[in-house]
This record gives sequence, C-alpha cells and structure tokens, in this order.
Amino acid sequence: MIDLDDIRAAARRIALHIRDTPTVEVTHVSGPATPARLLLKLENLQVSGSFKARGAMNKLLSLPADAVARGIVTASGGNHGLAVVHAAQHAGVAATVFVPESSTEEKREKLRLRGARVEVVGKIWNEANVAALSLAETTGAAYFHPFADPYVMAGQGTIGLALLEVAPELDTVLVAIGGGGLISGMAVALKALKPSIRIIGIEPVGSPTLKASIDAGHVVRLPSVTSKVATMSCGETDPGVFGVVRDHVDELVLVTDEDMESAAKWLWFELGIAADLSGAASIAALRSGKIAVSRGNVVGGLVCGAGLDVAKL
Amino acid sequence: MIDLDDIRAAARRIALHIRDTPTVEVTHVSGPATPARLLLKLENLQVSGSFKARGAMNKLLSLPADAVARGIVTASGGNHGLAVVHAAQHAGVAATVFVPESSTEEKREKLRLRGARVEVVGKIWNEANVAALSLAETTGAAYFHPFADPYVMAGQGTIGLALLEVAPELDTVLVAIGGGGLISGMAVALKALKPSIRIIGIEPVGSPTLKASIDAGHVVRLPSVTSKVATMSCGETDPGVFGVVRDHVDELVLVTDEDMESAAKWLWFELGIAADLSGAASIAALRSGKIAVSRGNVVGGLVCGAGLDVAKL
Repeated sequence: MIDLDDIRAAARRIALHIRDTPTVEVTHVSGPATPARLLLKLENLQVSGSFKARGAMNKLLSLPADAVARGIVTASGGNHGLAVVHAAQHAGVAATVFVPESSTEEKREKLRLRGARVEVVGKIWNEANVAALSLAETTGAAYFHPFADPYVMAGQGTIGLALLEVAPELDTVLVAIGGGGLISGMAVALKALKPSIRIIGIEPVGSPTLKASIDAGHVVRLPSVTSKVATMSCGETDPGVFGVVRDHVDELVLVTDEDMESAAKWLWFELGIAADLSGAASIAALRSGKIAVSRGNVVGGLVCGAGLDVAKL
Repeated sequence: MIDLDDIRAAARRIALHIRDTPTVEVTHVSGPATPARLLLKLENLQVSGSFKARGAMNKLLSLPADAVARGIVTASGGNHGLAVVHAAQHAGVAATVFVPESSTEEKREKLRLRGARVEVVGKIWNEANVAALSLAETTGAAYFHPFADPYVMAGQGTIGLALLEVAPELDTVLVAIGGGGLISGMAVALKALKPSIRIIGIEPVGSPTLKASIDAGHVVRLPSVTSKVATMSCGETDPGVFGVVRDHVDELVLVTDEDMESAAKWLWFELGIAADLSGAASIAALRSGKIAVSRGNVVGGLVCGAGLDVAKL
C-alpha cells in the first residue's frame, strides 16, 4: 500500500504541523518493566494528544483544499477523532466524529471542547464507522479513515523515522494495534531502514483482530469484541492493512485490559506519565512477560496517547 | 549560601541518579499561553515525580553513609517527601514524611506505595515541620529540610544548568515558589552563567511568603495561609533563602489557586501533560497576564511535578 518514499513525503508534509515529541529512556524505576534497555517515544505529548495527528494532518495536506469544504467526518475510539478535529480546525471546517459506546467520556469531552460534533453510535468502532460513512455520503463531507488509508498510514509511519533517528541501535519495537494503521506505517518505515529490526504488535485479548486474521490467513470479522479499550478495539481490519502486517510484522501478542490498567498505573507511578490504556500497551506486554527480551535488547515503545484512565483506577 | 561551584558539584554528584528530563517547546496550541517562545522543562517526568529528587539525592550523597542509619524524616507538601523516600530507598533505610492536612490524598497514597510512613499533622507545612523535627530529635533519624539546606538548594539549582545547556537563548525564567529552595538554587546558577537573565518567582495569592518578606525587608511569618496548593504553601521562609531571593530574583508575582487550576487544565488539553498545581504555576502566571512578555522573549518554565489534579477539576 505504501513504501518508504510515501513515509518520507509524509514527514516533509507534516513537519511544520506536529511536535517533535521527546524520546525518554526508562531509567531509575523501582520495578523495571523489562531487563532490556527501554526507550519510550512520548506521543502523548503530540498535537491533539496522540500520534494520530500525524496521519490526520498528512491526509489533510495531501488533499486539494476544496475536498474538505463540506467538513470532515470520521469514526474513532477517540484519538483519531481528536486528530481529525485538529486537522479540521487547521482547514477552518467543521468536524463530526462518531464514537462507539465504549469510548471514554474523557475523550468525548475533549472532542467537544475542540469543537467537534460528537455522535455516539454502536458498541464497537465498525458500527460507528457505518454511520460515519453514511453521513459523509449524504452531506458530501470528506471522510478520514482511521487506519485503512495510505496517507494516514504514511503519517503514522513517520514515527518509525523519528525513532530510528534518535535511537538507531533499536532492535525491537512494540506497537499497539487498533485497526492496524500505526503498525503498518511504522513497520514499512522500520523494515526498510533496518531489516533486522523485530516488530511486535500488541492487541487486546478482547479484540485480536489482526491476530485472528493472520492465523486464518485472511481478514476475519471477530465474532465479538470484548475489550473495553476503545482505541484498540476493531471488529474487522482492512485487507491492505492485513497484507502489510502479514509481510512486515514479526509477532503479535495479546494483553488483557487488566494488564493495560496495571501498566498505566506503572507509567504514572514510575514516570509521571498519564497515558490512555492503549498508550500503556507496550509496558503491559513487557510486564506480563508476553515478549521474550533480554538484557542485551534495545526496545522501543510508544506512549500512543494521553489519558486520565489512571485517575479512575 | 551556595554558589555556582556547589551547583556544579551537585550536578556531578546526582548525574547517575536522576533522569535528564526533556525540554519541549510549546507549539501548535489552540490557545497560546503567551506571545513569547515558551520552553517547558518536564520535571514531572523526573525520578520520584518531581524536581525534588535532585535536592534530596544531592543531600543524601553529600552525607556520610552512617548519617542516615536511623532513617530519614522530613515534612513536605508531597513532592519533597516522595523524593526523600526515593533517597531513603537508595540508602536502604526507612523514611517518615509529615504532610499537612492540605496535601492531596494522591500524594499521600504515592508516598505509602513507595514505602513511607506518612503522618498528617497541621494545617500548613510549618506545623508539619515542627513534628518532623521533633521525631528526628527523639529517634536520631536524619532530617532533610525541603528548602533551607544548601545541598537541597544546590540540587534544585542543577535545573538551571540543564535549562541553559539546551536553551542558551533563554531570557526569562519562571519558577514556582513554596519555601524558596528551587528558585534560590536556580537563580544562583542562572545569574552566574547569564547575568542578563530575568528570573520571576511565582507564589499563590494565598501563600505569598517571599513576596511579603521582600516587601517587609526581612523574613515575616504570614498571619494565615489560605492557598490549597500544599506544595506551594509555606507560612515562613528561611533567612538564607530570603537573602538569595532578594539578591537574585527580579520579580515576584502572585497567582490564584483558580489560575493554577485553569493552567493545569490548559496543560492537559493542549499538551497532554498531567501536572500538579505547582507544576502549572508558570502557565498560570503567563495566562493571567501577570508577567510582561512579548513576542521577542524566550521564556523557560518548569512543569515541577506530576499530578492528577486535572482529573478532579
């Protein structure tokens, strides 16, 4: 779907519109998450509160100006929605975001504060997305897919370029999966620049959409999605995303919602980082022992997005 | 009380024991806090959750090992206590932290999770401190003062060195004041390295301990402390700190608790940073228009400490 040149073009396109977020090495913790060296890219500090600003801005800036004249519509667990509203503000147009019932009130409130029209539809993202597509169809608004869009994937992939720039010694990268746009973009960038790198995707036990599809050899529709982590819940991925993950990702591991809650508490207690549960997925995978890493490894993870989930735990 | 050499010695002493926290430039916000360029040093990501780890570790490492054999005692609004517990763990001894009633339950819980004995005494820090001194006296435990200690001040001053290293172009630095240890250390470092720099201290309207003392020309005891921001509340500063602030700090401004609450919300909404209210003081001072800054200025502030206050607002 995309290649390294697309991701480099995205990086140039969005450079003036996003923050160059810091990468911190996790040191001096009282209960280490891993024996490996661990670097975290703090995309919770990114414009709009998550890495999703990269993809949404790349999508916007690749379109002719009049393409969004009737506003932008999307469906999102929350973070992509916030990024789309940010893009819409930049373009000076209205944004409508369909979120599933599982999305947190905190994300909905932030969407409203940023000026979005928020519609709560369906139990999972795929249901909210049907409503979003329908509204785009009837109103002529532009539709921004959260993951199955080459510009969105390329935008998220710019994190791979940024990570290797600050830490070329990385040998393992952990990436949380919702629909698979982030890991697709990052995997294309990372494998192109450093073929030896190991890329591990992380899904909730209650929403193993890529794992089930890879195991089956084709895209499957999950019979049910039971994770409460809306930003990582997706009943069915896209065939293009499926192909990229199949060809570029080395392992897929599953973590429980409780693993992520515990990891979010760890991030707060040890590092003072308030992450949403998807932002704690890498730490969850490491702490639950789902990933084989040793002292010699240099592991990179993302804190995907900001969240106050820890205040409720 | 201290000079640049003391602060450089502190930096060498603590280098392996603290995190080199990132400094981020505040860009792409929807409601700017200031027309100036604004850089924030994220000490909310520091070991123990705030900059206080610098002073506490410098104090510990400057003492002979047997000085803390009977444990460490302190009194704190919360952040210095967390730093002392961190230092005590490093030394393998017990820590007792006296906190005033105004300290947040969040900080107390974190203290307990780190293994401290927590005693809630008095309405303000000075009252808690009397109890801490008394316990140190009777048990032989080492007492770590949160601000009126040259090693603590020198430790906090290392932030000044770090800020100028990443941003030598800074012309104005904003520093929150509780007792005055942080601003004393930073002011000594900054004025020694760049005499033209403007240093502005920020106190709560409800705890103007340095402002009242500077206005009076000597240390005064405030008739009452009404701020609910425990980490910035202090009924009476120390004569040494008073002298350093009088000689090195250019301005003192007061912000309301509500200014800080609003600033904490801003930090969360715009930057995904969960700060405690003292961590939002610089932003509060800028947003409330209490400081004259223009487009040409390069302003540095600290996010002093992590906090989930925004979740309650």
